[in-house]
Formats: sequence, structure tokens, C-alpha cells
Amino acid sequence: MVENEHMPTMKQFEPPSGTRDFLAGEVMIREAAFATIRRVFERYGFEPLQTPAFERLETLTGKYGEEGDKLIFKILRRGEHEASGEADLALRYDLTVPLARVAAEYSGQLPMPYKRYAIAPVWRADRPGKGRFREFTQCDLDIVGSTSPLADAEVVSALSDTLTELGVPEFKFLLNSRQALAGLLEAYQVPEALGGGTLITLDKLDKLAPDAVIEELRGRGLPPQTAEVLVDDLTAEDSVERFRSALKESDAGRAGLEEIDQLLRLVLGQVPADRIAFTPRLVRGLEYYTGVIFEIVAPGMPGSIASGGRYDGLIARLGGQDAPACGGSLGIERILPLLGEDGTSARSADVAVPILSEDLAAEAFRLAAALRRTGMRVVTYLGSSGKLGRQLKWASDQGARFSAILGRDELDLGEVTVRDMETGEQTRIDLAEAPTWPGWRS
Amino acid sequence: MVENEHMPTMKQFEPPSGTRDFLAGEVMIREAAFATIRRVFERYGFEPLQTPAFERLETLTGKYGEEGDKLIFKILRRGEHEASGEADLALRYDLTVPLARVAAEYSGQLPMPYKRYAIAPVWRADRPGKGRFREFTQCDLDIVGSTSPLADAEVVSALSDTLTELGVPEFKFLLNSRQALAGLLEAYQVPEALGGGTLITLDKLDKLAPDAVIEELRGRGLPPQTAEVLVDDLTAEDSVERFRSALKESDAGRAGLEEIDQLLRLVLGQVPADRIAFTPRLVRGLEYYTGVIFEIVAPGMPGSIASGGRYDGLIARLGGQDAPACGGSLGIERILPLLGEDGTSARSADVAVPILSEDLAAEAFRLAAALRRTGMRVVTYLGSSGKLGRQLKWASDQGARFSAILGRDELDLGEVTVRDMETGEQTRIDLAEAPTWPGWRS
Repeated sequence: MVENEHMPTMKQFEPPSGTRDFLAGEVMIREAAFATIRRVFERYGFEPLQTPAFERLETLTGKYGEEGDKLIFKILRRGEHEASGEADLALRYDLTVPLARVAAEYSGQLPMPYKRYAIAPVWRADRPGKGRFREFTQCDLDIVGSTSPLADAEVVSALSDTLTELGVPEFKFLLNSRQALAGLLEAYQVPEALGGGTLITLDKLDKLAPDAVIEELRGRGLPPQTAEVLVDDLTAEDSVERFRSALKESDAGRAGLEEIDQLLRLVLGQVPADRIAFTPRLVRGLEYYTGVIFEIVAPGMPGSIASGGRYDGLIARLGGQDAPACGGSLGIERILPLLGEDGTSARSADVAVPILSEDLAAEAFRLAAALRRTGMRVVTYLGSSGKLGRQLKWASDQGARFSAILGRDELDLGEVTVRDMETGEQTRIDLAEAPTWPGWRS
Repeated sequence: MVENEHMPTMKQFEPPSGTRDFLAGEVMIREAAFATIRRVFERYGFEPLQTPAFERLETLTGKYGEEGDKLIFKILRRGEHEASGEADLALRYDLTVPLARVAAEYSGQLPMPYKRYAIAPVWRADRPGKGRFREFTQCDLDIVGSTSPLADAEVVSALSDTLTELGVPEFKFLLNSRQALAGLLEAYQVPEALGGGTLITLDKLDKLAPDAVIEELRGRGLPPQTAEVLVDDLTAEDSVERFRSALKESDAGRAGLEEIDQLLRLVLGQVPADRIAFTPRLVRGLEYYTGVIFEIVAPGMPGSIASGGRYDGLIARLGGQDAPACGGSLGIERILPLLGEDGTSARSADVAVPILSEDLAAEAFRLAAALRRTGMRVVTYLGSSGKLGRQLKWASDQGARFSAILGRDELDLGEVTVRDMETGEQTRIDLAEAPTWPGWRS
């Protein structure tokens, strides 16, 4: 191939780095999953919310920590201000800050508690990698304005129902509470100043070997014996029992255990008992959680496929009004690969209508229209070949179940030839009654 | 109210200028319309395409003319490049440039002709105004790779079916062709150099008085008599007949008439004859059309609610590969107001479940879960009042059809009280068989 500086490079037609084009098969799989999610969420009385793709820059900055702020896509000012190189708008980084803004703006119009879901793309200028995109979809459900444990239970239960209806096999809830974690630090006499760091390191127990975690804890200044006992208890077969006894020794620990047990009681029979368990080592990186926290894991996908918890102070911190809140988020980009659909069947018509000559086109087009009115997916031949063989090949390529052939012969008799594209069998049927022919549904 | 520089102004919580938040009622109305549109488009064999919200800046610039380029939202470079004040990405301005890019990138994987639809937001930094937004949704369907008149007919027919199924009353297709317009200029001996300007001015005949249009044509240098005869013929009762005769005098005119008549023949019986008509004054501002052009108008909405045509050179000009194409676009933001839905019924549960005390919560929650499994929309009380009266008021506010009340009494008997929220009538039913109680569907 001759290089030519005016020739477009192949990259020119790719979507921007970290983003994807979804062709028909992928769109169908994704939209089917979103429809299932919406259906389950609505069954719980969650209502949809859609907010703009961009927010005012000041609405987003300072909400995601220093690292998060760097990943915000900023939009340049326009017109005479463009030359300033300044930004005034920014692409949505998550769906929680827009929720906080909406809860403040429309507080009078929203039901309280406000149970909303949102399924929408967010944008992060992360380094693109396997399973990490710059444009990806979040599926969030949140309840703003209720401190009831039933609210936490509804979130957990709705996520469980959703994953079941999506067909995710063998998912499991890891459950903990921020109060239980405070109780844990107390029970193991972790110095207060080291509490946060200790939890961050313990959170790595699902990735690092126990010795490496002990090493890191010691590096943080934790007494060696404390580090060893903590990690030993957390990785023991009977770790849950060990922590249940340890937590009973402090107020925070008892309150945390009660939070966890109350949730387990509420979802009993709703989420199978072997699918949800108190998991002392679960920390969740996000510092804004205040109550129950959870992650959902599934075989075949490292990390979690969903997560959530109670975050009572966050709405106010994000610029909204102070209100208790809890919620969860499905990692749909990590869930879809688990469903094992290939989407190749997306492009299949019910009926293909060849066009045998220009003077028969109008009649064939009307036949197609009449068949469509019954709800069938009908395609007409838009190419330039007048040959039937070539057009039947096209019908096959379309995945059409039948071809409806209207030649001069057929038209003169008021008939149409229906060809079963699988068997090659042909049947003449009455043209006027074609839409109601029972064979289409056979 | 005391002014305080630290108090947030109310504007803080509004969505950015020219954008909208859609609360539940509006989301439901919009999504129902989109579902109808998708259903009809798919029945014609159009397949969905989803592309990223942003494209590389160079993919978009130079494609929309000087005025259009100014309206592109540009995204600032990130990290160390942010300080440069330069942009490298830009928000999608329409759905056609992404189509051109996709047609080039995946040409081997796409069926040919490629019939795709897209329903997605686009962003334009226009001055916001009544009905003019900076974020708005486009619904496009296009056929790339076919010169067949059937392709144009499918676009027209699919749009007609869609508007009918959406329930838009009395819409009408205004139909013309670029060749007919060339024939018109020839027939009225408009000097070639004045052709483009003349058409732009004639396009204003639906807004300006005939005299004002004549004045503008004369200002452009058209001989006064030509201007008068043209406008007179275009506004006459029998303008269609006058132009049919005039067009027959030139090759371009005859070809244009044949294009129009062929389309009319194809959609005959499919689009009612009084809903589509040759409209000589229809020009369509966009210079890229090459064949049949159309607009759809409807009473109650000034301007057009949909439009389209054949644009054979555009895909190549937009950076794709040379391919014939035609398509259309529904102005959904202008169509939705015509449907007169108010969406207030969106927030209605089938069943509300009061929570009478903490120790009954788990049982009530399980009842809600069991009822949801039948597909009903069930809400549980998440507030703090233990009073039944207050909770029944809440159930009413939720628009619930029934309340399912589980008190200590009921639980001891293995029953549940169902209250019809309209009549106040109460029935005791068996708790275990509650999900299959026929009364829910009455």
C-alpha cells in the first residue's frame, strides 16, 4: 500500500480511545439487560431520573478527591471565551453528584423518601485498559431520606432480584458495616491514628497473601502482634465466629453486628441464606459510607460486580441538602461478560421481500407494509440485482425465516409465493390474505 | 431572607443552561415514545447503533459549516496538557457524522445496504430558548449503500408509521426533489449564479409575506418580473399544476418529477394520499441533499416535526467512504408536546405495604417480596411513623391501588388485610396465598 500523507490513517475511523461503538448485536444485548434492570427496580417503586451529560464544573470539582478530580473531562468555554482555555462545564463523573443536585433542586416535587434509579453513561479520563473504559454505563439505585433498615434491605433485595433475573450465576453478597469495622479496630486495640490506614490495608486481603498484609500493617506502625492476630483471625476458617465474639466487647461492635443481623433477618427468604454473609474483612475503599456496606462477587469475574451501602452524610457533602441515604450500583460492564450472549442473532428478519422488477416494486412494497402491520420484521431488497437467486442469497444473509416472492405470475393470480428459507419449501398463498396467513407464526 | 455570601444561590442546583433534568413522569413519557419509535424502525429492518458521546475533535470540525463549528462543545485536553487550553475531543453535534465514521470503520462487518437507526442526545452550544436546548435527543434512521427508490420509500413509510403509532394527529409530508428545484431554476430562467440564493429566499415563503420574498429576491439581483412570476406561481392555488407543466420543459425538471412520482407510487396505500404532496416551494436549507427531500408538518407546531431526503455525497464528505445514502430524522422534542400526555400517573404503585412495628418488619418485607415476584409494583413504608393512619395517607400519596396490612392479629392467623385504597373496603386473605389472590388484578 502506497503511503500518502493525504490518505486517512486507519485510526481515523476508530472511536476515541477508551470509548466503544456498539453495533446492533451488542446494543440488543445491552438494552435487554437494561430493560430487565429497569423492570426489577420499578417493581420496588424506584423511579427513573435522567440528568444532563454535563454539569457546571464547580458542581463536580472537589467531590471525588484529588485523584478523581484529575479524571474529570472538562468542557472548554465557547465563543469569545474559548481562547481563555478555561472550562466551565464538565462531563458527569458518576450518577451520585447529579442525584444530590436534583434532590436539592426539586425537593418540593419529589416523594420522600426519594427512591430513584438511573442507568446512564459516565465519563472518566482514566487510562484505558482491559475492562476499563472512558465512557461506561452505571446502573444506580438510591433511597434518599430514610434511615429505616428496610431501605437498606430494599437495595440489597432489589440488586439480588436483578442479578437473578439477568441470569448471573452464583453471585454472593459480602456484608459488613462501618460500625462493625470501628468495633473491630477497638477490639484489636488498633491506635486511633492508625485506624483508617489499617482498614485500607486489610481491604487488600482478597488480593495479597496474608504475610504481605501483615508486613504492610507493620509498616504503618501497627504493633507486630496486633497485625498478626488481626490477619490470622480474618483469614481463619472460623473468622466470622471469632469476630462476632470480638465485636460484642464494644458499643460500636455491638451496634454494627445488630445492623448486619437486622439486614440479614429482613432479607431472609428473599436472598438465599448461602448467598449473603457477614464478611469481617470487607472494607470498601470509599470513605463516605456510614452504615451497612456490601459488595457482590461472582465466579468468573475478579473484583466485585456490584456494591453499595449507607452513606448518610454524602448528599450534603456533594452539595445537596443533608439527608440520610443508601444505595447500590451494578457494574454492568462487568456483569454483561458473565451472561455469555453473543448477539449474533440480532440481525434476523421475519420476512424478506425480493423486488423482481421495477414495475413490481410498488406491489412488493405494499405487501411488505401490510406484513409489517402485523408486527413482523420485514425487509425489502434495496440492491440493484434483478435476479431472484441473488436476492434469495440476500434473504438468507438477512437471517430471514421466509421470503415473500411477488412475480408477474403471482400478481396476475392475486397470489404470493412464500419460501421457507430453511427447508426451501414454497407455498402459494392469497395475496390479499397474506397478513393473516397462519404459516408465518409456525 | 438574609443575604449571605456563603449561602448557595438557588441557581446552584439547576441543571446547566440549555439542559434539562427529567423526573420520573417525563422519563416515562419520553421512554414510551422512544420504545414506539424503536419498534417501528426495527419492523423495517433498521438496526440500532450506539456511538460514544464524544468524537475526536478533527472528526467533527469542518463538517457543519462555519456557524455549526462555533456550536461544537469542545473537551479540554487532560493532565499535563490541560494548561495548554487546547481541546482534543468534542461532544457529538449530530448522529450523521458518527454514522459516516462507523460505516467506514466496520464496512466489512455491516450488512450492505446498512440500515441503521439511532436515538441519542446531541449537544450544541446554541443560545438556549423556547424549544431550543443545548442537549436534545435526535431520532435518525438512514440507509447507506442503496440508490434504490425503495430506500427513500422505506424512510418515508417508516416515519409515517412511527408518527401514526405515536398518535401525532394530521401530520403531512411536504415532498420535493433537488432535481425538481434545479428544473425550477431553469424553467424560470434564474441566472445560474443566483440559483442558490434564490432557493434560500424561496424557502422563507412559509414564514414571510409574498411581497417580502419578492423584495428579497430583487435584492439578490433577480429580474423583478422573474421574482414576481416565481412567487406568484409558488403561492397560487394551482401552484402544483403550474410547476408540473413548467418542470416538464427541462431534463432536470422531468427527472425531478419522475423521482417524486415514483416515491408517491411506492408509498401509495401506505401513506394516505392526502398526507403527502409534491410541494414546489420546499427547499430544505441543508445543501447536501441530492435527490428527494421532504419535511413533515403538523398542526399546532410551527416549522417541521421531521425531515429528510437523499444525500448521496455526504458520507464521503463527512470523512467516510463514498456511498449513496438517504435518511430522515424525527424532531422528538417538537413531537412530544403534540402528544398531550401529562405523566402525572407515573408514580403509582400497585400495592403499598405499611410497617406497623419493628418486629413485624421482616414479615411485611417478605410479603412485599412475594407480591413483587408476580410482577406487581410494591412499595414498603420507609418512614418513621408507626401509625397506620399516617401510613395509609402515605399509601394514598404513592397512588397505590391497594394496601396490604400485616398486623400482629393478621400474622397470628396467617392472614393479611387488603385495603382497596379507592373504596376503603377491606378484605382478609390468606397470607401464604396472597401472591395468587385474584383480587389484585380486578
